[in-house]
Amino acid sequence: MRPLDVLQQSLHKRVLVEMKGGRSYRGVLDAYDQHLNLLLSAAEEVVKDEVTPRSGVTLVRGDSIVYISP
Amino acid sequence: MRPLDVLQQSLHKRVLVEMKGGRSYRGVLDAYDQHLNLLLSAAEEVVKDEVTPRSGVTLVRGDSIVYISP
Amino acid sequence: MRPLDVLQQSLHKRVLVEMKGGRSYRGVLDAYDQHLNLLLSAAEEVVKDEVTPRSGVTLVRGDSIVYISP
Amino acid sequence: MRPLDVLQQSLHKRVLVEMKGGRSYRGVLDAYDQHLNLLLSAAEEVVKDEVTPRSGVTLVRGDSIVYISP
Amino acid sequence: MRPLDVLQQSLHKRVLVEMKGGRSYRGVLDAYDQHLNLLLSAAEEVVKDEVTPRSGVTLVRGDSIVYISP
Amino acid sequence: MRPLDVLQQSLHKRVLVEMKGGRSYRGVLDAYDQHLNLLLSAAEEVVKDEVTPRSGVTLVRGDSIVYISP
Amino acid sequence: MRPLDVLQQSLHKRVLVEMKGGRSYRGVLDAYDQHLNLLLSAAEEVVKDEVTPRSGVTLVRGDSIVYISP
Repeated sequence: MRPLDVLQQSLHKRVLVEMKGGRSYRGVLDAYDQHLNLLLSAAEEVVKDEVTPRSGVTLVRGDSIVYISP
Repeated sequence: MRPLDVLQQSLHKRVLVEMKGGRSYRGVLDAYDQHLNLLLSAAEEVVKDEVTPRSGVTLVRGDSIVYISP
Repeated sequence: MRPLDVLQQSLHKRVLVEMKGGRSYRGVLDAYDQHLNLLLSAAEEVVKDEVTPRSGVTLVRGDSIVYISP
Repeated sequence: MRPLDVLQQSLHKRVLVEMKGGRSYRGVLDAYDQHLNLLLSAAEEVVKDEVTPRSGVTLVRGDSIVYISP
Repeated sequence: MRPLDVLQQSLHKRVLVEMKGGRSYRGVLDAYDQHLNLLLSAAEEVVKDEVTPRSGVTLVRGDSIVYISP
Repeated sequence: MRPLDVLQQSLHKRVLVEMKGGRSYRGVLDAYDQHLNLLLSAAEEVVKDEVTPRSGVTLVRGDSIVYISP
Repeated sequence: MRPLDVLQQSLHKRVLVEMKGGRSYRGVLDAYDQHLNLLLSAAEEVVKDEVTPRSGVTLVRGDSIVYISP
């Protein structure tokens, strides 16, 4: 098993994505690639405990990600 | 489906682009490439809630992008 | 012997992962790859001596890692 | 169309270049390459609203660029 | 002679590793690779003159290293 | 014409090199390569308006450079 | 001539190495490679005018280097 296999298993499920700089996202994982670029839907952005719902999808750039928690 | 496919679907539509350092852009996506370099038209720049309209097009360098929201 | 061989020997054992920016994780190493991307289960996140248990698995991006201590 | 095509169309025209760290340049685009290295002539440097004219040409390194506005 | 040859000569000997951000390690070099990833055993971590012994081995990621002193 | 061609034309002439972090150099360009590594002779280092003459040559690493002004 | 040729000419001679973050080293250049990794002997570390002699050799990682002055 490789680490990114967990993303395959998490497709269409809710994940938590922690970003560099303290921002994080919660949303449904619609797609990913080997650079850890992620496509999230029904996402919420969390900055210092302040939650902002985001409509539509969000494409998160992989190199700003610290960890992903399926 | 791969994450960047959402950009193909977003061509000629309005997107929100969040940059490293707190700056963001809203504009129409005219073009993109695999490095996430984006060409936006009719863009507005938003820095700390201050909105500045930008005339013409804006070429945004991909490696400064945190997320793109179509 | 190469440095990453120690990860092979640490599979399914508890490791400590120190991240850039002062955050660290303790968890069971379920998978790793050559970029040092890690999959941890039963992980705890430690920020400034504050320990937060994390349910499920956590995929940690390799380029944010400072060191791994099996 | 690809994002960098706009640079081809902007050759010998005035562009605005925003750099990481808050510095920006306005000048005539004499040349560019795929790394977004730019050659500007008749450039002005703008740091916090202070404008400094620069004689001759300026070679701007692509990886310090945030966006280019033709 | 190339710079990394000194690591071959330092195998199983004590080295000092200075990291970005002011942290450093002293330990026995058990393995290294071309990315300067290091495996140290019997290591001590030094942060601002505070020394913490670390049991077992420590895998230090090469891109956080400033210098290695065999 | 490509941006780096201006360096070929600037060989053995005086250039200004602005670095990340606010430091800059003025010196005669003796050599360059495609990574923008530069070899300067008769260089002066300028940090916050304080000028320090440097004897001999200085090899400046390309990835710390913001711009070069021939 | 290419910039790194100056390192070949500086082998076994004293060089000054300025690092990102304000640290610098003076020492005899025993080896180098194309990534600007350097092996210095009889080195002194200088941080804010405080000089610390370092016994043995020091392997300095190239990507932390700002400039080298032979």
